[in-house]
Amino acid sequence: MLEQVVCVAAVSVLGVLEQAYFSLQVVYARRKYSVSPPATSGPPEFERVFRAQMNSSEYFPIFIVLLWVSGAFFSQVTTAVLGLLYLYGRYKYFKGYTESAYGRLAPLYFSTNVLWVLIGLSSLGVFNVTVKLYLGVDLLHQLIDI
Amino acid sequence: MLEQVVCVAAVSVLGVLEQAYFSLQVVYARRKYSVSPPATSGPPEFERVFRAQMNSSEYFPIFIVLLWVSGAFFSQVTTAVLGLLYLYGRYKYFKGYTESAYGRLAPLYFSTNVLWVLIGLSSLGVFNVTVKLYLGVDLLHQLIDI
Amino acid sequence: MLEQVVCVAAVSVLGVLEQAYFSLQVVYARRKYSVSPPATSGPPEFERVFRAQMNSSEYFPIFIVLLWVSGAFFSQVTTAVLGLLYLYGRYKYFKGYTESAYGRLAPLYFSTNVLWVLIGLSSLGVFNVTVKLYLGVDLLHQLIDI
Ligand SMILES: N[C@@H](CCC(=O)N[C@@H](CS)C(=O)NCC(=O)O)C(=O)O
Ligand SMILES: N[C@@H](CCC(=O)N[C@@H](CS)C(=O)NCC(=O)O)C(=O)O
Ligand SMILES: N[C@@H](CCC(=O)N[C@@H](CS)C(=O)NCC(=O)O)C(=O)O
Repeated sequence: MLEQVVCVAAVSVLGVLEQAYFSLQVVYARRKYSVSPPATSGPPEFERVFRAQMNSSEYFPIFIVLLWVSGAFFSQVTTAVLGLLYLYGRYKYFKGYTESAYGRLAPLYFSTNVLWVLIGLSSLGVFNVTVKLYLGVDLLHQLIDI
Repeated sequence: MLEQVVCVAAVSVLGVLEQAYFSLQVVYARRKYSVSPPATSGPPEFERVFRAQMNSSEYFPIFIVLLWVSGAFFSQVTTAVLGLLYLYGRYKYFKGYTESAYGRLAPLYFSTNVLWVLIGLSSLGVFNVTVKLYLGVDLLHQLIDI
Repeated sequence: MLEQVVCVAAVSVLGVLEQAYFSLQVVYARRKYSVSPPATSGPPEFERVFRAQMNSSEYFPIFIVLLWVSGAFFSQVTTAVLGLLYLYGRYKYFKGYTESAYGRLAPLYFSTNVLWVLIGLSSLGVFNVTVKLYLGVDLLHQLIDI
């Protein structure tokens, strides 16, 4: 059982490390631009770092849900590769947003597209298990066999 | 194994789609009211959309945890139905909050109540598995048999 | 299967209850300091409560991911104990932050340290299952036997 989700678990831990890295950047930005909690507004340079981390935090649970559903119901390895692409896109988003608001856009589209693919694979996987359950046919494996 | 969580996985993917819809509404509201990132304040119309998405994002991980614990430990089908009710409540919350701050209240109480029921079922399910583990008695199934 | 994650599920439900408690404190603080949604700024007393809940919400998905990966791949009981320590640290963080911005620091370090330990155990667990999968050796159990 655990073997079937080990890659997805590894990507999840990597995702946690990425979020930890983003949080630390906010801590450093708070020091650099003297924005003491509970304040969250300050110079645009600070606010971009702050929002980059916040936006990534917002998407993190969505990413994790799709990673595990797609990994368990569709295919572990494909999903893990897509997961790595997403984390790479988020890193670029963070770096881009830190430099300018415009810099966030290209990586945002990239990482959002990866999420749409994961939504597609998750839906396919869930649909396949449902069909297998009620009709006894494993569509996905039959497709691969063709 | 996967068959025992397939409904819960389907509701999770639906929840992700709902969050994606809320995020897109914020993107549109940013354009409509000219609130460029990293700014998050603007006219009240914008701020209500922004907060409606933010508040739903905050509750999303809580919802997912309860959905899976209740689905795996208590009952998949009951849980999936409650999950759909929650997502419906959140949709109403988003629409209501978009119109007025007051409009968020009734759907908020509704969706929070669904969460409390899920907390109850999750606790019951976890308790039942613990009892089964240590005393060898399956209380839930015995109750249903009575 | 469920028996192997029952403690981790119990700690997750406790974590949800803690988040619900934090949210309720924000609702009370909104009333006490007359900060009506969608506003999120007000007197520092309010903003500290608001940020304490927000910060805890941000870390909640990270905590849940580590709890389940460490619980499933490393050891359930050790993980559950660390999970309880984390929730205790977060409670102290919330209380400390409510009183003063400075008061959040010591509990923050404590809870962050618990997360680092969980990151270590998760990585170890994932590494161990990978090695078992490809080399057929269960390093963790051999270590315990020595
Ligand atoms: N969102 C956090 C990310 C980094 C973090 O966790 N910072 C710690 C140490 S400065 C904290 O307690 N932040 C206070 C807060 O989030 O209000 C922030 O804005 O600071
Ligand atoms: N919370 C987001 C929700 C929508 C979203 O993800 N927007 C993208 C494209 S405008 C973004 O990069 N937002 C910047 C931000 O969240 O600071 C927002 O406020 O914009
Ligand atoms: N982050 C929430 C935590 C508590 C909560 O969920 N409050 C409800 C009832 S006051 C709400 O609808 N809040 C509006 C909002 O989050 O913008 C807040 O700031 O209020």
